[in-house]
Amino acid sequence: MKGKAYEQYHASFGGTYIRDAVFGANDGIVTTFAVVAGVAGANLPLSTVLILGFANLLADGLAMGLGNYLGIKSEVDYIRRERRLEGWETVHAPDLERKEIEAIYQRKGFKGKELQRVVEVITGNKKVWVDTMMTEELGLPTEKSEHPVKNGVATFISFALAGLNPLLPYIFGIPDAFNVSIIVTGLTLFLVGSLRSLITKKPWFVAGLEMLLVGTVAAAAAYFTGDFIKRLI
Amino acid sequence: MKGKAYEQYHASFGGTYIRDAVFGANDGIVTTFAVVAGVAGANLPLSTVLILGFANLLADGLAMGLGNYLGIKSEVDYIRRERRLEGWETVHAPDLERKEIEAIYQRKGFKGKELQRVVEVITGNKKVWVDTMMTEELGLPTEKSEHPVKNGVATFISFALAGLNPLLPYIFGIPDAFNVSIIVTGLTLFLVGSLRSLITKKPWFVAGLEMLLVGTVAAAAAYFTGDFIKRLI
Ligand SMILES: [Zn+2]
Ligand SMILES: [Zn+2]
Ligand SMILES: [Zn+2]
Ligand SMILES: [Zn+2]
Ligand SMILES: [Zn+2]
Ligand SMILES: [Zn+2]
Repeated sequence: MKGKAYEQYHASFGGTYIRDAVFGANDGIVTTFAVVAGVAGANLPLSTVLILGFANLLADGLAMGLGNYLGIKSEVDYIRRERRLEGWETVHAPDLERKEIEAIYQRKGFKGKELQRVVEVITGNKKVWVDTMMTEELGLPTEKSEHPVKNGVATFISFALAGLNPLLPYIFGIPDAFNVSIIVTGLTLFLVGSLRSLITKKPWFVAGLEMLLVGTVAAAAAYFTGDFIKRLI
Repeated sequence: MKGKAYEQYHASFGGTYIRDAVFGANDGIVTTFAVVAGVAGANLPLSTVLILGFANLLADGLAMGLGNYLGIKSEVDYIRRERRLEGWETVHAPDLERKEIEAIYQRKGFKGKELQRVVEVITGNKKVWVDTMMTEELGLPTEKSEHPVKNGVATFISFALAGLNPLLPYIFGIPDAFNVSIIVTGLTLFLVGSLRSLITKKPWFVAGLEMLLVGTVAAAAAYFTGDFIKRLI
């Protein structure tokens, strides 16, 4: 059974907040470091890093948080609506819905009188009936008990906290801020990436290196784009 | 049954590419418009919009695309791994796994000899047995047939295409570019938002207005942050 001690080795994919946090953190780091790298590539004044770094941090962070809230909310709403619809069908088109259950259990290998008995038992309990339609007919979870507001807040906070890191050397006015920012950003990416291993059960250093690689590609793109456009205009 | 004509009124939540596209497009618009609004709020030179707008567009777009690819890939891998694990269990701990099936069907209302027969039939077909463990024990889909590369590409392309819109007035050197950009961005946000109604079955204008609102909050944050930090430094 789910959660029983003897099957602890099944990885849990449940931690949606961890997923939100990792996702938000990753976007936050890349977004602000893109500003840092673009400014460096185009030799813009350092103050631009703080101005646009923070502007991006707040704007993208809010959009990600609100967007995630709306997305999960509509998923939850969707599943509730489908559930209501199947419930309505069991009342208003019971013969059709009974035929669906029959077809589902026929495919599982039941036949004849046995099949009829299974259909009777399943359709004898409305919750079981609708649950079966949800998972077997529609391929949906039977219900979603998520808290979209918490998902949104987790996204925003992790976005802002992680996204602050590339800006730190500029906030504290450290000399050679760009190089320090590269190091801080690389470490943050690796750390956030390795936290992903909590969800995916990948080895932590593989997950960390993966995210470091993605960030490096993104940062290089920002740097050379900044440099390239500066020459163009 | 799924997809049969007489149940067309069930909304389809399937279109994962639509979801990727909407998600990517939304992030693209907000990210580049944050640069536009931050530059306007802080009265930076207009060339900064193009330099950092494009730097952000490429960097964040690549990170989002690669990130989505990695995320979906690890979900697919995870489900395959869990499936293999349950398959292994049916071979190496068949009694335990049979007990699980028994408990699952007991909760559905079966008892006595009937329950034993159901367990026999379900565990008589390995695919059905493992499918049942996946959905009923672990609450997972029986399998995932997704193409992570396509998800990643869909994210990147929609990010880049939508994210280009706030920059257009600057690219073409239109006078009063900021105000034109506000209008273009607002229209794009509304359009992308209303496309979301394809997935969520919300009325299209509600979905459109929702996204417009999120974008407005984000843009206002960018504008006032730009203005605020400019005064600070
Ligand atoms: Zn992003
Ligand atoms: Zn139905
Ligand atoms: Zn049905
Ligand atoms: Zn974002
Ligand atoms: Zn198991
Ligand atoms: Zn099991």
